[in-house]
Amino acid sequence: MKSYNVAVVGATGAVGTRMLEQLTHTTLPIASVKALASKRSAGKTVKFGDQDLIVETLTEDSFENIDLALFSAGGSVSAKYAPFAVKAGAVVVDNTSHFRQNPDVPLVVPEVNPHALDSHHGIIACPNCSTIQMMIALEPIRKVYGLKRIIVSTYQAIGGAGNRAMDEAREQLKSVLNDGVDPTQLSADILPSAGDKKHYPIAFNALPQIDVFTDNDYTYEEMKMTHETKKIMEDDTIAVSATCVRIPVLIGHSESVYLETEKVADIDDVKRLIAQFPGAVLEDDVAHQIYPQAIESVGKRETFVGRIRKDLDVANGIHLWCVSDNLLKGAAWNSVQIAETLHERDLIHPVSELKFEAK
Amino acid sequence: MKSYNVAVVGATGAVGTRMLEQLTHTTLPIASVKALASKRSAGKTVKFGDQDLIVETLTEDSFENIDLALFSAGGSVSAKYAPFAVKAGAVVVDNTSHFRQNPDVPLVVPEVNPHALDSHHGIIACPNCSTIQMMIALEPIRKVYGLKRIIVSTYQAIGGAGNRAMDEAREQLKSVLNDGVDPTQLSADILPSAGDKKHYPIAFNALPQIDVFTDNDYTYEEMKMTHETKKIMEDDTIAVSATCVRIPVLIGHSESVYLETEKVADIDDVKRLIAQFPGAVLEDDVAHQIYPQAIESVGKRETFVGRIRKDLDVANGIHLWCVSDNLLKGAAWNSVQIAETLHERDLIHPVSELKFEAK
Repeated sequence: MKSYNVAVVGATGAVGTRMLEQLTHTTLPIASVKALASKRSAGKTVKFGDQDLIVETLTEDSFENIDLALFSAGGSVSAKYAPFAVKAGAVVVDNTSHFRQNPDVPLVVPEVNPHALDSHHGIIACPNCSTIQMMIALEPIRKVYGLKRIIVSTYQAIGGAGNRAMDEAREQLKSVLNDGVDPTQLSADILPSAGDKKHYPIAFNALPQIDVFTDNDYTYEEMKMTHETKKIMEDDTIAVSATCVRIPVLIGHSESVYLETEKVADIDDVKRLIAQFPGAVLEDDVAHQIYPQAIESVGKRETFVGRIRKDLDVANGIHLWCVSDNLLKGAAWNSVQIAETLHERDLIHPVSELKFEAK
Repeated sequence: MKSYNVAVVGATGAVGTRMLEQLTHTTLPIASVKALASKRSAGKTVKFGDQDLIVETLTEDSFENIDLALFSAGGSVSAKYAPFAVKAGAVVVDNTSHFRQNPDVPLVVPEVNPHALDSHHGIIACPNCSTIQMMIALEPIRKVYGLKRIIVSTYQAIGGAGNRAMDEAREQLKSVLNDGVDPTQLSADILPSAGDKKHYPIAFNALPQIDVFTDNDYTYEEMKMTHETKKIMEDDTIAVSATCVRIPVLIGHSESVYLETEKVADIDDVKRLIAQFPGAVLEDDVAHQIYPQAIESVGKRETFVGRIRKDLDVANGIHLWCVSDNLLKGAAWNSVQIAETLHERDLIHPVSELKFEAK
């Protein structure tokens, strides 16, 4: 049986370490795993099951004999090195936003659009964390009732901004709780966006900015939810407007989603459809205070959906609350799951035509 | 000049102590202040400016010679004792939900519907914290462009559940940060709702339940936003559906609001209208990362509004983000402000007809 030499790029990061962890619990037959990162992290060790892998410096030549490369080291790293991986014969699953809107790159949530993998040209993009869990919650509804419109407000965890952001948040919280520092006086170097000019404390705060702003006054994070939904659901007519907010949660994104279906939906049927959908878990019993909670999602691969109810005025309007581990289904697990699906469809092999220029 | 004997009921609570604080910075002429609370708190002292007030036990006879009584000790306390206050000749400003939907009780945000005070019968209700700040953000838009619809997702602070809830949250956070306790293993006795059966940790969590659930699967907190908006804006046709969520913030509610106007609005004009509206502060300059933040709202009387932008698809759809100190504008300050407005309109005097039965 075929088995694969796998590379993980960004192996020391919050997502990279979880990719290695997910690869120890996968149906993907693995021959070897190579841990790659920037020069700064080279020589460190990372865990792959019981093994300690020594991290190697990522170079243009890192992908010799690699069949599958999982990237999660930032958009600029993927932009530069993913084409070299493809050129060397590997298939790339990229967790950054760099290639997501490229028409030659499938953008895949395996439960929703696995067929999109069939036309890959060596690079497959894993969607944004906030988009993926919303797709899991909405696809079972869309398939039966159609989907016209989404308004989503997110409650995103700090972990999405990486290990350093989580460390900084912990330090900020300790300063307030143990030393009585006023939250407005805390120092901050990372959130809301490492690449932006100003930084604000997240301790006891809610920051309505994730990633930088675009020209239309939405953030890139918000526009990712708009563009990626249309691409994954293969329907440009679905209206999506998002408000993306960071809250003082370490891991586990929550989302308040309003949607309008084409046909008026029966709420009990919607619950049944979600309960039956792979990757979705229905947690909706308000009489017993059962609804999804961020802290309960940590370490799990599923997306949890609850608080499903009719809009009070609009017949085809539905509100729901969905929660998932943003580092697993939102990143590492969805990437490994894409790899599993590629394997199931026998799609892990060198491409015949190079669509991405290695330079 | 007329000056008033004021009673504060629930004087030791998170809102009550702030009512006393707001009464030290008021245009209301005050002759005396009496601090009332349950027997449990009697004998404690509370601050009123430089004075230490000794807390007295609330009884049916507590309101002799009182002109104005501010209640914030829970709905059942208001239900029982507010009628005795009115009978004794006082005017009551009640911060609980008990009388809010009573047609004989004005429900007032002074910047929005001060005229409703003119027909009071001794009890005026202060709206729910989450409603008040939304009214400040939306009234300037409604007045010019009309308002058809609101979809709101809240990011509510723990302080709304009182001092004990804040203490518990701090302890939970310390257990995780200092002792490494897993958030799912924390004990919880108060949130999401002290009156409900199950309690969940708020540390590193987002709880999509505030107050208990109603028969339609919305919570009372959510239905308060629906009913109170219609009453304050005096328009039953405004559609309001809310999702109310508690997050690990101590003080300062944030809200992601989507609204549809009657007439298509110009966004620059909307910003101008909000900037000019009393009680509202426009904080909207995304090029410089300026938007409202919970930690910056603490201790301030205003409601801060930003992230104002058009919906991406619906011409009359607008999204915005509003933040306010839930214990001040959301409770203590709005109550004292109602009292100031009653005074300005010469409405603080005994009622001629008793509409509320003291029993």
